[in-house]
Amino acid sequence: MGFWKSLFNGSNGSSAPTLVSVNGSIGPTLAIAKNGRDAKSASSKITFSKDRDIDLYELEELCDAVGWSRRPIRKVKKALKYSFLVVSMWEHRGSYRRLIGFSRATSDHTFNATIWDVVVHPDFQGQRLGKALMKQIIKELRREDISNITLFADPHVVNFYRDLGFMPDPEGIKGMFWYPNFR
Amino acid sequence: MGFWKSLFNGSNGSSAPTLVSVNGSIGPTLAIAKNGRDAKSASSKITFSKDRDIDLYELEELCDAVGWSRRPIRKVKKALKYSFLVVSMWEHRGSYRRLIGFSRATSDHTFNATIWDVVVHPDFQGQRLGKALMKQIIKELRREDISNITLFADPHVVNFYRDLGFMPDPEGIKGMFWYPNFR
Repeated sequence: MGFWKSLFNGSNGSSAPTLVSVNGSIGPTLAIAKNGRDAKSASSKITFSKDRDIDLYELEELCDAVGWSRRPIRKVKKALKYSFLVVSMWEHRGSYRRLIGFSRATSDHTFNATIWDVVVHPDFQGQRLGKALMKQIIKELRREDISNITLFADPHVVNFYRDLGFMPDPEGIKGMFWYPNFR
Repeated sequence: MGFWKSLFNGSNGSSAPTLVSVNGSIGPTLAIAKNGRDAKSASSKITFSKDRDIDLYELEELCDAVGWSRRPIRKVKKALKYSFLVVSMWEHRGSYRRLIGFSRATSDHTFNATIWDVVVHPDFQGQRLGKALMKQIIKELRREDISNITLFADPHVVNFYRDLGFMPDPEGIKGMFWYPNFR
Protein backbone atom coordinates (compact mmCIF):
# COMPACT_ATOMS: atom_id res chain seq x y z
CA MET A 1 0.00 0.00 0.00
CA GLY A 2 2.88 2.32 0.82
CA PHE A 3 4.07 2.18 -2.75
CA TRP A 4 0.86 3.54 -4.21
CA LYS A 5 0.42 6.08 -1.45
CA SER A 6 3.83 7.56 -2.10
CA LEU A 7 3.27 7.45 -5.83
CA PHE A 8 0.02 9.34 -5.90
CA ASN A 9 0.18 11.29 -2.66
CA GLY A 10 -3.35 10.19 -1.78
CA SER A 11 -4.83 12.56 -4.35
CA ASN A 12 -8.50 12.13 -5.16
CA GLY A 13 -8.58 14.67 -7.98
CA SER A 14 -10.36 13.93 -11.20
CA SER A 15 -7.24 13.45 -13.27
CA ALA A 16 -5.09 11.50 -10.82
CA PRO A 17 -5.68 7.79 -10.23
CA THR A 18 -6.47 6.72 -6.69
CA LEU A 19 -6.05 3.44 -4.92
CA VAL A 20 -8.94 1.02 -4.55
CA SER A 21 -8.96 -2.32 -2.84
CA VAL A 22 -9.93 -4.54 -5.79
CA ASN A 23 -7.27 -7.11 -6.71
CA GLY A 24 -5.52 -6.74 -10.04
CA SER A 25 -3.62 -9.31 -12.06
CA ILE A 26 -0.40 -8.08 -10.52
CA GLY A 27 -0.12 -5.34 -7.97
CA PRO A 28 -3.07 -3.35 -6.74
CA THR A 29 -5.82 -2.03 -8.99
CA LEU A 30 -6.23 1.68 -9.41
CA ALA A 31 -9.50 3.52 -9.73
CA ILE A 32 -9.33 6.39 -12.15
CA ALA A 33 -11.88 9.12 -12.71
CA LYS A 34 -11.05 10.58 -16.09
CA ASN A 35 -11.77 14.10 -17.13
CA GLY A 36 -11.93 15.21 -20.77
CA ARG A 37 -13.87 13.35 -23.40
CA ASP A 38 -15.01 10.56 -21.09
CA ALA A 39 -16.12 12.87 -18.30
CA LYS A 40 -19.70 11.63 -18.40
CA SER A 41 -18.86 7.96 -17.97
CA ALA A 42 -18.34 6.16 -14.70
CA SER A 43 -14.98 5.77 -12.97
CA SER A 44 -12.69 3.18 -14.48
CA LYS A 45 -10.14 0.85 -12.97
CA ILE A 46 -6.52 0.41 -14.07
CA THR A 47 -4.81 -2.95 -13.75
CA PHE A 48 -1.41 -4.34 -14.67
CA SER A 49 -0.74 -7.76 -16.15
CA LYS A 50 2.26 -9.96 -16.90
CA ASP A 51 0.22 -12.10 -19.29
CA ARG A 52 1.94 -11.90 -22.68
CA ASP A 53 -1.05 -13.22 -24.60
CA ILE A 54 -1.94 -9.72 -25.82
CA ASP A 55 -4.05 -8.95 -28.90
CA LEU A 56 -1.24 -7.81 -31.18
CA TYR A 57 -3.54 -5.58 -33.21
CA GLU A 58 -4.57 -3.80 -30.03
CA LEU A 59 -0.88 -3.37 -29.20
CA GLU A 60 -0.24 -2.04 -32.71
CA GLU A 61 -3.07 0.45 -32.22
CA LEU A 62 -1.49 1.62 -28.95
CA CYS A 63 1.90 2.08 -30.64
CA ASP A 64 0.24 3.87 -33.57
CA ALA A 65 -1.35 6.29 -31.10
CA VAL A 66 2.08 7.51 -29.99
CA GLY A 67 3.41 7.67 -33.54
CA TRP A 68 5.74 4.67 -33.52
CA SER A 69 6.69 3.08 -36.82
CA ARG A 70 4.73 -0.07 -37.58
CA ARG A 71 6.51 -3.38 -37.17
CA PRO A 72 5.50 -6.72 -38.70
CA ILE A 73 2.99 -8.46 -36.41
CA ARG A 74 4.83 -11.80 -36.68
CA LYS A 75 8.02 -10.14 -35.46
CA VAL A 76 6.24 -8.43 -32.57
CA LYS A 77 4.76 -11.81 -31.63
CA LYS A 78 8.22 -13.40 -31.58
CA ALA A 79 9.73 -10.50 -29.61
CA LEU A 80 7.01 -10.82 -26.94
CA LYS A 81 7.53 -14.56 -26.75
CA TYR A 82 11.26 -14.16 -26.14
CA SER A 83 11.09 -11.14 -23.85
CA PHE A 84 11.90 -12.01 -20.27
CA LEU A 85 9.03 -9.94 -18.96
CA VAL A 86 6.01 -8.17 -20.42
CA VAL A 87 3.97 -5.75 -18.32
CA SER A 88 0.81 -4.30 -19.79
CA MET A 89 -1.57 -1.72 -18.36
CA TRP A 90 -5.34 -1.93 -18.83
CA GLU A 91 -8.32 0.31 -18.32
CA HIS A 92 -11.47 -1.49 -17.18
CA ARG A 93 -14.81 0.19 -17.62
CA GLY A 94 -17.63 -2.19 -16.77
CA SER A 95 -16.98 -5.32 -18.83
CA TYR A 96 -14.86 -3.40 -21.33
CA ARG A 97 -11.07 -3.71 -21.15
CA ARG A 98 -8.66 -1.53 -23.09
CA LEU A 99 -4.86 -1.78 -23.46
CA ILE A 100 -3.49 1.63 -22.42
CA GLY A 101 0.15 0.91 -21.63
CA PHE A 102 2.91 -1.54 -22.38
CA SER A 103 6.52 -2.32 -21.53
CA ARG A 104 8.82 -5.31 -21.82
CA ALA A 105 12.32 -6.39 -20.88
CA THR A 106 14.99 -8.65 -22.31
CA SER A 107 17.25 -10.41 -19.82
CA ASP A 108 19.69 -13.19 -19.06
CA HIS A 109 17.28 -14.07 -16.20
CA THR A 110 20.12 -13.41 -13.75
CA PHE A 111 22.27 -10.28 -13.87
CA ASN A 112 21.04 -7.87 -16.54
CA ALA A 113 17.71 -6.69 -17.90
CA THR A 114 17.02 -4.05 -20.54
CA ILE A 115 13.61 -2.39 -20.75
CA TRP A 116 12.17 -1.69 -24.22
CA ASP A 117 8.98 -0.34 -25.78
CA VAL A 118 7.56 1.67 -22.88
CA VAL A 119 4.35 3.26 -24.08
CA VAL A 120 1.30 4.91 -22.49
CA HIS A 121 -1.71 5.90 -24.60
CA PRO A 122 -1.92 9.71 -25.05
CA ASP A 123 -5.42 9.71 -23.48
CA PHE A 124 -3.81 8.46 -20.26
CA GLN A 125 -0.62 10.48 -20.20
CA GLY A 126 -0.06 13.17 -17.55
CA GLN A 127 -1.71 11.01 -14.88
CA ARG A 128 1.43 9.37 -13.51
CA LEU A 129 0.44 6.11 -15.17
CA GLY A 130 3.76 5.92 -17.02
CA LYS A 131 5.51 6.05 -13.67
CA ALA A 132 3.12 3.43 -12.27
CA LEU A 133 3.84 1.15 -15.23
CA MET A 134 7.60 1.60 -14.83
CA LYS A 135 7.44 0.98 -11.09
CA GLN A 136 5.55 -2.21 -11.84
CA ILE A 137 8.16 -3.54 -14.28
CA ILE A 138 11.03 -2.56 -11.95
CA LYS A 139 9.27 -4.32 -9.08
CA GLU A 140 8.85 -7.47 -11.14
CA LEU A 141 12.51 -7.42 -12.26
CA ARG A 142 13.66 -6.93 -8.67
CA ARG A 143 11.40 -9.79 -7.59
CA GLU A 144 13.29 -11.97 -10.10
CA ASP A 145 16.52 -10.82 -8.40
CA ILE A 146 17.86 -9.02 -11.48
CA SER A 147 20.63 -6.76 -10.23
CA ASN A 148 21.25 -4.53 -13.24
CA ILE A 149 18.21 -2.84 -14.82
CA THR A 150 19.02 -0.76 -17.90
CA LEU A 151 17.31 1.06 -20.74
CA PHE A 152 17.99 3.39 -23.63
CA ALA A 153 16.04 6.65 -23.26
CA ASP A 154 15.11 9.11 -25.98
CA PRO A 155 16.31 12.62 -25.01
CA HIS A 156 12.82 13.91 -24.11
CA VAL A 157 12.21 11.13 -21.57
CA VAL A 158 15.60 11.13 -19.83
CA ASN A 159 14.18 13.18 -16.93
CA PHE A 160 11.13 10.91 -16.69
CA TYR A 161 13.44 7.93 -16.14
CA ARG A 162 15.78 9.93 -13.90
CA ASP A 163 12.84 10.60 -11.55
CA LEU A 164 12.33 6.85 -11.36
CA GLY A 165 15.91 6.22 -10.23
CA PHE A 166 17.64 5.68 -13.59
CA MET A 167 21.03 7.37 -13.95
CA PRO A 168 22.37 8.39 -17.38
CA ASP A 169 25.97 7.33 -18.17
CA PRO A 170 26.86 6.23 -14.61
CA GLU A 171 30.64 6.33 -14.12
CA GLY A 172 30.94 7.38 -17.75
CA ILE A 173 29.40 4.18 -19.12
CA LYS A 174 28.07 4.94 -22.61
CA GLY A 175 25.05 3.41 -24.29
CA MET A 176 26.10 2.52 -27.84
CA PHE A 177 24.21 1.36 -30.94
CA TRP A 178 25.73 -0.48 -33.87
CA TYR A 179 25.29 1.07 -37.28
CA PRO A 180 26.70 -0.96 -40.17
CA ASN A 181 27.93 2.10 -42.04
CA PHE A 182 29.03 4.28 -39.15
CA ARG A 183 32.76 4.96 -38.75
CA MET B 1 37.56 -14.64 -46.53
CA GLY B 2 37.36 -10.94 -47.30
CA PHE B 3 36.35 -10.24 -43.73
CA TRP B 4 39.55 -11.62 -42.24
CA LYS B 5 41.72 -10.09 -44.92
CA SER B 6 40.37 -6.66 -44.21
CA LEU B 7 40.63 -7.21 -40.50
CA PHE B 8 44.24 -8.26 -40.37
CA ASN B 9 45.60 -6.75 -43.58
CA GLY B 10 47.33 -10.02 -44.46
CA SER B 11 50.02 -9.42 -41.85
CA ASN B 12 52.36 -12.30 -41.09
CA GLY B 13 54.11 -10.59 -38.18
CA SER B 14 54.79 -12.45 -34.97
CA SER B 15 52.20 -10.61 -32.89
CA ALA B 16 49.34 -10.38 -35.40
CA PRO B 17 47.17 -13.41 -36.14
CA THR B 18 47.04 -14.58 -39.74
CA LEU B 19 44.45 -16.54 -41.65
CA VAL B 20 44.81 -20.28 -42.15
CA SER B 21 42.54 -22.62 -44.02
CA VAL B 22 41.57 -24.94 -41.14
CA ASN B 23 37.87 -24.88 -40.28
CA GLY B 24 36.85 -23.46 -36.92
CA SER B 25 33.67 -24.05 -34.95
CA ILE B 26 32.25 -20.87 -36.41
CA GLY B 27 34.02 -18.64 -38.86
CA PRO B 28 37.54 -19.27 -40.04
CA THR B 29 40.37 -20.38 -37.80
CA LEU B 30 43.27 -18.05 -37.22
CA ALA B 31 46.89 -19.05 -36.88
CA ILE B 32 48.73 -17.00 -34.31
CA ALA B 33 52.45 -16.94 -33.65
CA LYS B 34 52.82 -15.43 -30.20
CA ASN B 35 55.75 -13.51 -28.98
CA GLY B 36 56.49 -12.95 -25.30
CA ARG B 37 56.52 -15.71 -22.72
CA ASP B 38 55.45 -18.45 -25.15
CA ALA B 39 57.95 -17.50 -27.83
CA LYS B 40 59.58 -20.92 -27.77
CA SER B 41 56.44 -22.90 -28.45
CA ALA B 42 54.95 -23.63 -31.85
CA SER B 43 52.33 -21.46 -33.56
CA SER B 44 48.83 -21.72 -32.18
CA LYS B 45 45.40 -21.50 -33.76
CA ILE B 46 42.52 -19.30 -32.63
CA THR B 47 38.93 -20.46 -33.07
CA PHE B 48 35.52 -19.10 -32.14
CA SER B 49 32.62 -21.11 -30.79
CA LYS B 50 28.91 -20.59 -30.09
CA ASP B 51 28.82 -23.64 -27.82
CA ARG B 52 27.66 -22.43 -24.39
CA ASP B 53 28.84 -25.55 -22.58
CA ILE B 54 31.91 -23.75 -21.23
CA ASP B 55 33.90 -24.80 -18.17
CA LEU B 56 32.66 -22.12 -15.78
CA TYR B 57 35.83 -22.24 -13.71
CA GLU B 58 37.88 -21.56 -16.83
CA LEU B 59 35.56 -18.64 -17.58
CA GLU B 60 35.99 -17.38 -14.01
CA GLU B 61 39.77 -17.57 -14.45
CA LEU B 62 39.51 -15.51 -17.63
CA CYS B 63 37.39 -12.87 -15.87
CA ASP B 64 39.79 -12.89 -12.89
CA ALA B 65 42.66 -12.19 -15.29
CA VAL B 66 41.10 -8.87 -16.30
CA GLY B 67 40.20 -7.97 -12.73
CA TRP B 68 36.44 -8.44 -12.83
CA SER B 69 34.58 -9.04 -9.58
CA ARG B 70 33.76 -12.69 -8.97
CA ARG B 71 30.18 -13.77 -9.51
CA PRO B 72 28.52 -16.92 -8.12
CA ILE B 73 29.13 -19.83 -10.52
CA ARG B 74 25.45 -20.90 -10.36
CA LYS B 75 24.38 -17.44 -11.46
CA VAL B 76 26.90 -17.35 -14.30
CA LYS B 77 25.59 -20.76 -15.41
CA LYS B 78 22.01 -19.45 -15.46
CA ALA B 79 23.01 -16.26 -17.28
CA LEU B 80 24.77 -18.27 -20.00
CA LYS B 81 21.77 -20.56 -20.34
CA TYR B 82 19.41 -17.64 -20.88
CA SER B 83 21.68 -15.52 -23.04
CA PHE B 84 20.56 -15.42 -26.65
CA LEU B 85 24.08 -15.92 -27.93
CA VAL B 86 27.45 -16.83 -26.43
CA VAL B 87 30.64 -16.45 -28.47
CA SER B 88 33.89 -17.70 -26.99
CA MET B 89 37.42 -17.51 -28.35
CA TRP B 90 39.94 -20.32 -27.94
CA GLU B 91 43.63 -20.81 -28.42
CA HIS B 92 44.64 -24.26 -29.67
CA ARG B 93 48.19 -25.45 -29.20
CA GLY B 94 48.54 -29.09 -30.20
CA SER B 95 45.83 -30.93 -28.24
CA TYR B 96 45.62 -28.16 -25.64
CA ARG B 97 42.70 -25.70 -25.79
CA ARG B 98 42.51 -22.54 -23.74
CA LEU B 99 39.63 -20.06 -23.31
CA ILE B 100 41.08 -16.64 -24.19
CA GLY B 101 37.98 -14.56 -24.96
CA PHE B 102 34.28 -14.40 -24.26
CA SER B 103 31.18 -12.37 -25.08
CA ARG B 104 27.44 -12.88 -24.88
CA ALA B 105 24.20 -11.15 -25.80
CA THR B 106 20.69 -10.95 -24.41
CA SER B 107 17.90 -10.50 -26.93
CA ASP B 108 14.21 -10.73 -27.77
CA HIS B 109 15.35 -12.93 -30.71
CA THR B 110 13.85 -10.36 -33.07
CA PHE B 111 14.52 -6.63 -32.78
CA ASN B 112 17.04 -5.91 -30.04
CA ALA B 113 20.21 -7.45 -28.70
CA THR B 114 22.51 -6.18 -25.98
CA ILE B 115 26.10 -7.40 -25.75
CA TRP B 116 27.55 -8.07 -22.27
CA ASP B 117 30.75 -9.42 -20.71
CA VAL B 118 33.21 -8.86 -23.54
CA VAL B 119 36.61 -10.05 -22.32
CA VAL B 120 39.96 -10.94 -23.90
CA HIS B 121 42.77 -12.44 -21.81
CA PRO B 122 45.57 -9.90 -21.21
CA ASP B 123 48.11 -12.29 -22.85
CA PHE B 124 46.13 -11.92 -26.08
CA GLN B 125 45.29 -8.24 -26.01
CA GLY B 126 46.82 -5.84 -28.53
CA GLN B 127 46.52 -8.41 -31.34
CA ARG B 128 43.16 -7.31 -32.71
CA LEU B 129 41.54 -10.40 -31.21
CA GLY B 130 39.02 -8.27 -29.31
CA LYS B 131 37.92 -6.81 -32.62
CA ALA B 132 37.82 -10.30 -34.17
CA LEU B 133 35.63 -11.52 -31.28
CA MET B 134 33.29 -8.54 -31.60
CA LYS B 135 33.03 -8.94 -35.38
CA GLN B 136 32.11 -12.57 -34.78
CA ILE B 137 29.28 -11.79 -32.34
CA ILE B 138 27.99 -8.97 -34.59
CA LYS B 139 28.03 -11.34 -37.57
CA GLU B 140 26.09 -13.96 -35.64
CA LEU B 141 23.50 -11.40 -34.45
CA ARG B 142 23.09 -10.09 -38.00
CA ARG B 143 22.69 -13.67 -39.24
CA GLU B 144 19.79 -13.99 -36.78
CA ASP B 145 18.32 -10.84 -38.36
CA ILE B 146 18.58 -8.75 -35.20
CA SER B 147 18.21 -5.14 -36.31
CA ASN B 148 19.30 -3.26 -33.20
CA ILE B 149 22.62 -4.25 -31.61
CA THR B 150 23.45 -2.33 -28.44
CA LEU B 151 25.90 -2.36 -25.55
CA PHE B 152 27.01 -0.34 -22.56
CA ALA B 153 30.69 0.62 -22.82
CA ASP B 154 33.04 1.60 -20.02
CA PRO B 155 34.67 4.98 -20.81
CA HIS B 156 38.07 3.49 -21.72
CA VAL B 157 36.61 1.18 -24.39
CA VAL B 158 34.22 3.62 -26.07
CA ASN B 159 36.71 4.21 -28.90
CA PHE B 160 37.29 0.47 -29.29
CA TYR B 161 33.57 0.00 -29.93
CA ARG B 162 33.36 3.15 -32.03
CA ASP B 163 35.94 1.68 -34.41
CA LEU B 164 33.67 -1.36 -34.76
CA GLY B 165 30.70 0.75 -35.85
CA PHE B 166 29.03 1.46 -32.50
CA MET B 167 27.81 5.02 -32.01
CA PRO B 168 27.52 6.53 -28.52
CA ASP B 169 24.21 8.29 -27.72
CA PRO B 170 22.84 8.27 -31.29
CA GLU B 171 20.23 11.03 -31.71
CA GLY B 172 20.70 11.85 -28.04
CA ILE B 173 19.53 8.41 -26.83
CA LYS B 174 20.94 7.88 -23.34
CA GLY B 175 21.99 4.61 -21.77
CA MET B 176 20.55 4.57 -18.24
CA PHE B 177 21.04 2.29 -15.23
CA TRP B 178 18.61 1.92 -12.37
CA TYR B 179 19.95 2.58 -8.90
CA PRO B 180 17.47 2.01 -6.08
CA ASN B 181 18.72 4.95 -4.06
CA PHE B 182 19.55 7.41 -6.84
CA ARG B 183 17.42 10.54 -7.12
